[in-house]
Amino acid sequence: MLENTKQESLKRLNYIEGHLAGIKRMVEEEKYCVDVLKQTYAVRRAIEKLESLLLDGHLHTCVVQGVKDGREEQVVGELLELYSLNSK
Amino acid sequence: MLENTKQESLKRLNYIEGHLAGIKRMVEEEKYCVDVLKQTYAVRRAIEKLESLLLDGHLHTCVVQGVKDGREEQVVGELLELYSLNSK
Amino acid sequence: MLENTKQESLKRLNYIEGHLAGIKRMVEEEKYCVDVLKQTYAVRRAIEKLESLLLDGHLHTCVVQGVKDGREEQVVGELLELYSLNSK
Amino acid sequence: MLENTKQESLKRLNYIEGHLAGIKRMVEEEKYCVDVLKQTYAVRRAIEKLESLLLDGHLHTCVVQGVKDGREEQVVGELLELYSLNSK
Repeated sequence: MLENTKQESLKRLNYIEGHLAGIKRMVEEEKYCVDVLKQTYAVRRAIEKLESLLLDGHLHTCVVQGVKDGREEQVVGELLELYSLNSK
Repeated sequence: MLENTKQESLKRLNYIEGHLAGIKRMVEEEKYCVDVLKQTYAVRRAIEKLESLLLDGHLHTCVVQGVKDGREEQVVGELLELYSLNSK
Repeated sequence: MLENTKQESLKRLNYIEGHLAGIKRMVEEEKYCVDVLKQTYAVRRAIEKLESLLLDGHLHTCVVQGVKDGREEQVVGELLELYSLNSK
Repeated sequence: MLENTKQESLKRLNYIEGHLAGIKRMVEEEKYCVDVLKQTYAVRRAIEKLESLLLDGHLHTCVVQGVKDGREEQVVGELLELYSLNSK
């Protein structure tokens, strides 16, 4: 994992953790469900942005290197597995 | 918010929080990106299940009551807003 | 189904059909996969907009009427089924 | 595009076209919205499966070849663009 991918990912994970703690407080205080749902949607968006960052790093490093090393079946297979998990 | 929706939601939020902490550890230990991504997908799935639970409660209580009270424009409008936020 | 929902839906379905025919031509002419995929994403977006329109009509008519007629279990159950099908 | 990817894609596109024609008939005959929506969801699923097939072919051919030819920035950039379009 590239150092800047790692640091940026940790920053985003901390933000997501804080957001989630806020949602827990909303549920404890029995806030309006519609408002809670808007926040859970926002958290999922934030996780998707983190995934995009991780995938970017993965493609530029492991995938490119894997193809150059002749392990293309492995790296392509993993990408297709991720794609299919993501669509489920 | 119904009491059992609230308790079940808090239980799921605690689980999601733990899962997210595990992902943070994976990033700190620079685990393989593909494995990290599989976990972030699983967290998003868990959040979607929580949303399904919250929506279930919301429809059975606020939406039904809203229509009966003649506030159908409001409750229908909110549902459409949630739907469109969710598809974004 | 409201008359304007029906007419607008048919208009959109015709547009989607034309778009899909264009994608078929792209595949027959062996266009670059990335360009084909961008078009299939666009078709899915167009279908989602059609769904949003159909759902809008459904909520304003059948759901509101169903609740008023005391068939709330049925209409709420159908909405939850749609939500869960949509997330799959 | 590989010949079997092409033939399989065309077969699926024909199937999707037929499915869409069925949905148009349902709207013309003003079938219950919930039933129409279940069909549009199914069409989107079918398009996603087609995309998975196209992506599979693309990764195994153009992406692997692109990396070997030193055009990794281009092929990785395209994959990230597709990913971000797909999440929108």
